[in-house]
Amino acid sequence: MTFTYQKSLEMFKRASKVIPTGIYGHLGPAEGCFIPSNAYPFFSERAKGAYFWDVDGNKFIDYMCAYGPNILGYNDEDVDAAALKQAALGNCVTSPSSKMVELAELMVDTVAMADWAFFAKNGGDVTSLAVMVARAATGRKKVILIKGGYHGVAPWTQKLGYPAITEEDVANNIYVDWNRYDQVEKIVKENPGEIACFMATPYHHPVFEDNELPKDDYWQKIRKLCTDNGIVLAIDDVRCGFRLDIEGSDHYFGFKADLMCFCKAIANGWNISALCGTDALKDAISSVMYTGSYWLSAVPIAASIECIKKLKKIDAPKLAQSLGKKLTDGLVKIGKSHGFDLVVTGVPSMWYMRIANDDSMILHQEWVAECVKRGAFFVNHHNQFINCALTEDDIKLTYDIADEAFKVVKNRHPEIE
Amino acid sequence: MTFTYQKSLEMFKRASKVIPTGIYGHLGPAEGCFIPSNAYPFFSERAKGAYFWDVDGNKFIDYMCAYGPNILGYNDEDVDAAALKQAALGNCVTSPSSKMVELAELMVDTVAMADWAFFAKNGGDVTSLAVMVARAATGRKKVILIKGGYHGVAPWTQKLGYPAITEEDVANNIYVDWNRYDQVEKIVKENPGEIACFMATPYHHPVFEDNELPKDDYWQKIRKLCTDNGIVLAIDDVRCGFRLDIEGSDHYFGFKADLMCFCKAIANGWNISALCGTDALKDAISSVMYTGSYWLSAVPIAASIECIKKLKKIDAPKLAQSLGKKLTDGLVKIGKSHGFDLVVTGVPSMWYMRIANDDSMILHQEWVAECVKRGAFFVNHHNQFINCALTEDDIKLTYDIADEAFKVVKNRHPEIE
Repeated sequence: MTFTYQKSLEMFKRASKVIPTGIYGHLGPAEGCFIPSNAYPFFSERAKGAYFWDVDGNKFIDYMCAYGPNILGYNDEDVDAAALKQAALGNCVTSPSSKMVELAELMVDTVAMADWAFFAKNGGDVTSLAVMVARAATGRKKVILIKGGYHGVAPWTQKLGYPAITEEDVANNIYVDWNRYDQVEKIVKENPGEIACFMATPYHHPVFEDNELPKDDYWQKIRKLCTDNGIVLAIDDVRCGFRLDIEGSDHYFGFKADLMCFCKAIANGWNISALCGTDALKDAISSVMYTGSYWLSAVPIAASIECIKKLKKIDAPKLAQSLGKKLTDGLVKIGKSHGFDLVVTGVPSMWYMRIANDDSMILHQEWVAECVKRGAFFVNHHNQFINCALTEDDIKLTYDIADEAFKVVKNRHPEIE
Repeated sequence: MTFTYQKSLEMFKRASKVIPTGIYGHLGPAEGCFIPSNAYPFFSERAKGAYFWDVDGNKFIDYMCAYGPNILGYNDEDVDAAALKQAALGNCVTSPSSKMVELAELMVDTVAMADWAFFAKNGGDVTSLAVMVARAATGRKKVILIKGGYHGVAPWTQKLGYPAITEEDVANNIYVDWNRYDQVEKIVKENPGEIACFMATPYHHPVFEDNELPKDDYWQKIRKLCTDNGIVLAIDDVRCGFRLDIEGSDHYFGFKADLMCFCKAIANGWNISALCGTDALKDAISSVMYTGSYWLSAVPIAASIECIKKLKKIDAPKLAQSLGKKLTDGLVKIGKSHGFDLVVTGVPSMWYMRIANDDSMILHQEWVAECVKRGAFFVNHHNQFINCALTEDDIKLTYDIADEAFKVVKNRHPEIE
């Protein structure tokens, strides 16, 4: 039997009356999950470990992990105990808690490149701040970005032609293709003394496309080019952070960034983001006006301290990669046994996958829908995520679900060999 | 005896090593509190009701209320119980909780102008979104803003000449003076079909200046001008929201905004902001790409539901205004008895004050410092805030503190009559 979503649908109808699009953004049906709306739940009731339960009582092994924040497992007991202990003392108070200092010290101690840490709320708060720091430090305006990269929703991160975006919003952006050092070098030569910042994710994880790791010497060449030309090298580690390397994803790929943006995995779902930087940029960031009502709140800070300590203790990046490797190897094998060519790219702790038998993506979408309706929550065209609460039994159950889903799709498409 | 801050200072030294400026933003010593650093604490240990305790054990009656979020009193038992109940179920999950629908319904039911609600994290998330919605709805770019107004820290809200701000960031902003309808009318005439949005706070509450209420027919004339010219009227109610009127500050001043930005007082310190709008703008907001990792998190949503219900139950805006009136009337009287001319402006629930005896602001700063060192936490040049946990006894104690502080300053300045 496959899941049904009666209560979710009723709630979604209520939502649509008072919330634009019912559920908005990357969690919503329109843009985010890329799954047919009859295949997936709209509203959750509770979550624990690797699972969440929707309002109809369906249980999912959740491979989206709230689009990243779930790294240790939902409602991790240690992280939540630290958060609740702090909540009893105070959260958003006129003077910050000294826990903020403790967290900054821990991040400086943990992240290889970090001499300091600055805390905010959204990933986009710190990607925007990174560009501002680069501008303050260099007195330059232009920013080199990767086509198809995602750095949040601030207008400067969007594309001209999207609703509400003006020419001025994106006037200082210059785009290059991923892994094309030659293009970056050309831009730098053509704009002498004008490039403030090169910003990219540590590897390329766009939507709707296979994810791509950096070429062997890509980052080393970019690092040298930036250093030689006084350009700030900013890494958007919002999605990859602490899923590749507890010392930072620049460390994973063997280089040292000037600025690193963290968010999703640093507090296991409690609301915080961070910008880490080198001492050379401390005066620049100190000169920038940047703050927010909740940015120094102590509860997410206390949660983050516990989360990072635990990530280090269990070597979470290694564990998540190992679980992801096991899961994806199995899925590929099961797919093959039914005649499906499941292509897996990216780092296994946050892999991207697609069924390559057809270019239309329809087979892939059908398979993902059949998985979701049986309790394995994937999305179609976004990378998936592993959390550390995932068990071998969960992986086995996912194999069974995937196997059944492949069978259903194959029966529907007898042309597959 | 006045307070000392040994532990705060030691912690601040530690902080300065790993956090740019030690404490940044409006909570930091550099920009925010505008109080001599020997007069006020850097780090808090805990907070409850109208008070917080710093790391040296000093207790303050807190008139900054975390710069606004504390509206019911710190760690309000009802709000926190709702937050913790939800935390046990789930917070940041792949699918949102249906609590989000409940909160949107409650806001639509509460805020007079609201047909829908959209939730984010920072006040600045929703002021930026308001401008984007206006652009999407009108196909125009330009925005009319008030000189000295504050709408967050996104580059478009800042000034050319500030570090990191580019000409492009502010290219579409047009500034007018507060309460000058004639200036707005002139701008609209000079830019036919080009103004997307007029954005302002419901009354003018800049820093370093007396706050100003709108002239009698100011908002009615602005409303008509916007309607006649297809301009979206967006009110930044981040600071005033639910301190003037539970139905929204536009309602308080007798007009209806198209968009209203809420943040500080909607969840008593749990991290959430909201944009409310009219049905005419629902398609426009639905077209804009705007989302964030934590925006649909259920814990702040559950807290907000309980907070708004309680604000309505106790008629918080009325209570806060009445407490603020009593407090400030007393302070003015006590000041007068010592020869000080304490000028109070703005709405009493978030009044602004200054000692007008000298233009240098030095007497004012000295008096505020003496108040803080005795346990009444004011800041110098920003409006103050009332929370609903403040008692008559707190007000009496504040009178005593203010009286002593006036005496100290008078003794130091024998020229005062």
